[in-house]
Parts: sequence; C-alpha cells; structure tokens
Amino acid sequence: MSLDPHGDLVVLLRALVDVESVSGNETALADQVESALQGHEHLEVLRDGDTVIARTHLGRPERVVIAGHLDTVPVAGNLPTSLAGDRVYGRGTCDMKGGVAVMLAVAVAATTPPRDLTWIFYDHEEVEASANSLTRIASERPDLLVGDFAVLMEPTSAKVEGGCQGTLRFTVTTKGKAAHSARAWMGHNAIHDLAEVLAVLRDHEPEQPVVDGLRYHEGLNAVAVTGGIAGNVIPDTATVSVNYRFAPHRSLADAEHYCRSLLPDHDLTFTDGAAGARPGLDVPAAATFVDAVGGEPSAKFGWTDVARFSALGVPAVNFGPGDPSKAHADDEFCPIDELYTCRDALLRWLDRPA
Amino acid sequence: MSLDPHGDLVVLLRALVDVESVSGNETALADQVESALQGHEHLEVLRDGDTVIARTHLGRPERVVIAGHLDTVPVAGNLPTSLAGDRVYGRGTCDMKGGVAVMLAVAVAATTPPRDLTWIFYDHEEVEASANSLTRIASERPDLLVGDFAVLMEPTSAKVEGGCQGTLRFTVTTKGKAAHSARAWMGHNAIHDLAEVLAVLRDHEPEQPVVDGLRYHEGLNAVAVTGGIAGNVIPDTATVSVNYRFAPHRSLADAEHYCRSLLPDHDLTFTDGAAGARPGLDVPAAATFVDAVGGEPSAKFGWTDVARFSALGVPAVNFGPGDPSKAHADDEFCPIDELYTCRDALLRWLDRPA
Repeated sequence: MSLDPHGDLVVLLRALVDVESVSGNETALADQVESALQGHEHLEVLRDGDTVIARTHLGRPERVVIAGHLDTVPVAGNLPTSLAGDRVYGRGTCDMKGGVAVMLAVAVAATTPPRDLTWIFYDHEEVEASANSLTRIASERPDLLVGDFAVLMEPTSAKVEGGCQGTLRFTVTTKGKAAHSARAWMGHNAIHDLAEVLAVLRDHEPEQPVVDGLRYHEGLNAVAVTGGIAGNVIPDTATVSVNYRFAPHRSLADAEHYCRSLLPDHDLTFTDGAAGARPGLDVPAAATFVDAVGGEPSAKFGWTDVARFSALGVPAVNFGPGDPSKAHADDEFCPIDELYTCRDALLRWLDRPA
Repeated sequence: MSLDPHGDLVVLLRALVDVESVSGNETALADQVESALQGHEHLEVLRDGDTVIARTHLGRPERVVIAGHLDTVPVAGNLPTSLAGDRVYGRGTCDMKGGVAVMLAVAVAATTPPRDLTWIFYDHEEVEASANSLTRIASERPDLLVGDFAVLMEPTSAKVEGGCQGTLRFTVTTKGKAAHSARAWMGHNAIHDLAEVLAVLRDHEPEQPVVDGLRYHEGLNAVAVTGGIAGNVIPDTATVSVNYRFAPHRSLADAEHYCRSLLPDHDLTFTDGAAGARPGLDVPAAATFVDAVGGEPSAKFGWTDVARFSALGVPAVNFGPGDPSKAHADDEFCPIDELYTCRDALLRWLDRPA
C-alpha cells in the first residue's frame, strides 16, 4: 500500500497512521513518504537516514521551512486507526501525523509557491534530543534547515502558537546517616530533610510573563521523589527530581540561576535542559503567516522543536491539527475538520505574495 | 563434620557459622544441632520442621525457656569464618550463632539444673513474621513454649536487655491530578503535598519513657518515599512509608492511635506491626536471672522475639554475645570473651536454687 498525497486527506492520514512508526522504527514510513514525494517536478527529494526532505528551488526571495516528525510514542492498543464521528483515532493521529498529512498534501499541491519551501519529515523526535535527526542535520547539513521562517506542524488545534517554553530538570539530593530505625537517634533521616525542599516547590508562585506579546505560564514541579533502603533503616539519602518550565525571556543559564536562587541551601544537579523560543511574531515572514492563517496567536507552553529553529536564528511557530493535550494519550485523535482547516490555511498563505 | 557441644566454644561457634543457614536453608544446620543434642540422658530432643527443641523433665518447680534462631540474613562474602585477634568474623557470628553456641554448650553441660529448661533452636527468624517457626509452634504446640521465664540469646554485648520496643509501619499516600508539566496548573502535584507530612516527621520529638524501670527511646521515621510518573508529568500520587518504634507501655492499638493523632488530615494505611514487650524484670524468675548474670539491665530498643513470649504471658529478656549494632553488618563478628562471659553467666545462674 502506498500513500496518495493527491487524494482524500482522511484516507492519507489513516494510511500514514497505519504504518506503525514508533521512534526507531520509522524506515517503512519514511520509504513511503519518499515515494509519495518523488516524481514531482517542483520538488527535489533528499533522504538522510529516515528523514525525508523535499525542497523547491524557484529562486524566490524568501524560504520557509515546514517540518513534522514521522515517529510516535509506543503503541498502546490504539492501532490500526478507527473512525468515530468526525475524528480519526489511533497512535500518532494527534502527535503528529495529522500535520504530516497536511504537509504531504500541500507539498505536492503547491507547485509554484510565492516563497521557496523546504518540507522536512524527520525521525526520532519522541526520544532523547541527541537521537533527534534534526540534531544530526543541524550539525552535518545546517544548510538544509536554513530559512527566513519555520512552521512546525505539531498539534495546536489549528491555531498559531508562538515560540515555546524552555525546560530544565534538576535533582536535589539530601544526605543523612544510616542507622537501624530502632535506634534512629544514631542516624540522620535524609527523607525528612526533603520537607524543606518540597515546601519551597509547593509554595512557589509560578510567573506568567508576557514575551513578545504572548503570555506564557511557568511551572516548577517535583516530578519524582525517591529514598529509602529498607523498612528498618534510617535512610541516608533521598532525591527529588524537579522540572522547571520557563518562559522564553529566560536563557537556559538564567533558568538555572533562578532555580539555584530558590534553593540556596541545596546543591542542584542539572540533568537536562533546553532553552525555549521567543515567539518572534514581529518578523515579517511570521506576520504574513499569522495574518493569512487567521486567528489570535497564543503562547506554546510545551517545548517543541521550534526551539531548534530559534537557536539557528530562524523564527518559528507551531501550527497543526489536533488538541495538544491529547498528544501521547491512548485515546489520541485528530478532528477531521482541523485537517482541512490547516491545509486550507497553508494554501491560502501560499496564495499570498511573499 | 559434626558439632561438638562439649568442646572449645570458639571451635563450636565457627562450626555453626560455617554451615550456611540463610533463612529457608536451615535444614543442614538443624540436622547437626539435633545430632549434637541427642544421646544426652537429661534431654528430650524434638524436631519440628527445622526447629530443634531439647527439654529437661526433672520435675522442677520452675521452667525456663532459652531460645535462639539458627538462620541468618543473606551471606555477603563473609563466609567461611575468620579469626582476627579476639573476634570471630562471619555471617551469623553476631546474629546469632554466638548465642546458639552458648546454648548448645550449656544445654549439654547442665545435666541437673535446679529449674527445668527448654532449649529452642528455631528457623526463619530473619524473614516475615508469618514464616517464623515460633509463630507455627505457638499456634500448634503452645505447650512447647510454656515457661515461667524466657531468655532470648540475641546479641546484647553480654548484658541483660529487658523487653523490647514495638514496631509499626504505615504509609501515607497523597493524591493529586496528573497533567503535562508544561501545563502544571491543569494538575495537582501529589509530591508537593508530601511536604507537610515530612515536616511533621522531621519536627516530631520522640519520647523516652521509663517502663518498669528501664528507659526506652522511641522513633518516628520515614523509611521510604516514592512518587513520579515521568519527567514531564505532574505526579498524581506519592507515598511515604513510616516506621514507628514505640516503647512497651503502648499497645499496638495505642501506637496506631498515636500516629493518627500526629497526622490528623491524612489517611494512614497500617501495613505491619508488632507490639513490644515490657521488661518484666520484677517477676521473681527474671530477678534471679538478672542477679546471677550481673550488670545493670537496660532497655532493648529493637524488636525481638521476646515479644512473642511476652504475648504468651512469659516474661523474657535478651542476653547474648555480640554487639547488636553489628547484626546484619557485612563485618559482623562475635567477641570471643563474650562467648565465655555468657556461658559462665548461664552456668552461674544454674548453680543457684530456683
């Protein structure tokens, strides 16, 4: 079975979803996407691992990158697809093969766009950042990501969501002294010492800063806690893991500094982090896009690969079918009307001069 | 190789220890203990599973039970035994084959004791209470445990330790609401709610009550904490496990009530518990023992099987060679002088009229 990018969008979406492509297993789907794009005169098709890139070379004054990932989180009994009312259900329908379907349809339909387009279908987005193929391409072929503006077709309920918040994780480990719990006074309880750390997190008031006109909403949360040796031993160590989601007016270094300032008496071990992206809607290419697509842009709370483009100096927005709060849910789905809304919005934008 | 209860105590201890008897694997050692006790006219030897019981039937007015367990916690590269200075090292030397060696030596030496004696060598002490062979015997053959007084030869550094503290475990689980950590305000963080519970535990001042003349020392401690789903999810549940060690003036029900009173706003789930034992040193049989053995009795902080005898109405003390704080330690050892101190104390006591 092959993909027909010229056919019905719902059929195309279901065909994309029914080729299981959990991170690491994208080859079969990448092969089909590559085939579907080949044979169109206006597109140069490249293959890099399981990433497929299609580009126009029309000599336009502006180039826009439109990207979506092919992989999904693990299947949870939610394949193959099913149709219920005006929704397509199944793993990846929301995150983000609805966006991929729109990309394929518009890539082949827009044969003479007023701006050059780079369509990127990439792999390994749902896993650690080092495995993400955009990491490799940014390092080995940064020219492929160059553009004046980028659109990431992550689910946004078909509205423009600008930029994204950054994310930072750290651990705080308390140290005590082990002892038999029948003689607790000979030890020191490391779990008890977490009380102070958890109280700081509990009492923290997250900020809601406005950045480039969009209101973000930060959060500082324990996401894991662990400690204890045995039921009769005073624990000598305990650890809380914290996730700080921060608005894009802070750099990663600013965010680390801020976390340290909240817990001045503790050692924070930063385990991973990624800066956010300012919405950048004041860039002309972005403004044209927002205007053509319509609606009121809002802030993107979750971290997305728009931050990668932002880091390369390419302003980027999120825009795609599907409710972002359904991403990764077992009952994820794509509303059919949003497929058409997104496709039509892109086509409308590509009808306007650059 | 067989055990010689008439021979050198150090040789006997090393022979007992070199037969590995981790809980569940006591048969070989029980066989040897049974053989060593057989053939002595003053002793009736019984076998019940891997428990060996030897009794005198001299028609004395008083019966004393002397008990010790044959099993050990798992070996940690500390077998076979080694001799270093005046210590025997190896798994079980402290907890509690030093006491078992003394029991065997005195059981065969005291052919005409002034009080009838019941020597109990039992299995499965280092595991869950339901597997402990004293549980089975108390239920099926309670007559075998009957006595006016009991001595448990757990390590006490060759001093009398009276009674024991009780132990109680409970969990407190906080409930929140899961959400993506990029939109934390849509959820409720269950780990943060542990702050209050941990603060109560941290700020709790343990009591040090005097019971029957001995000062106990309570303790209320978190022994485990767990919570968290994923690095990007607000946790909807978190649990702290607490161990309360309580002095024997409280019943198990009193102890539960006390814990509930400390955390009135939380649901406590009690997972296991065992009442302590009052020292009972005012009972004549106990007073005679303490007087003959010498030294100042103190309180036993850790829970031991003296509580089982106490529950059967038999006052009991702990008295055996070895530092209790070395029990279960990889470098556990038995000081050789304490072997002789304990043996001589028992023989001295058995020289005195009942």
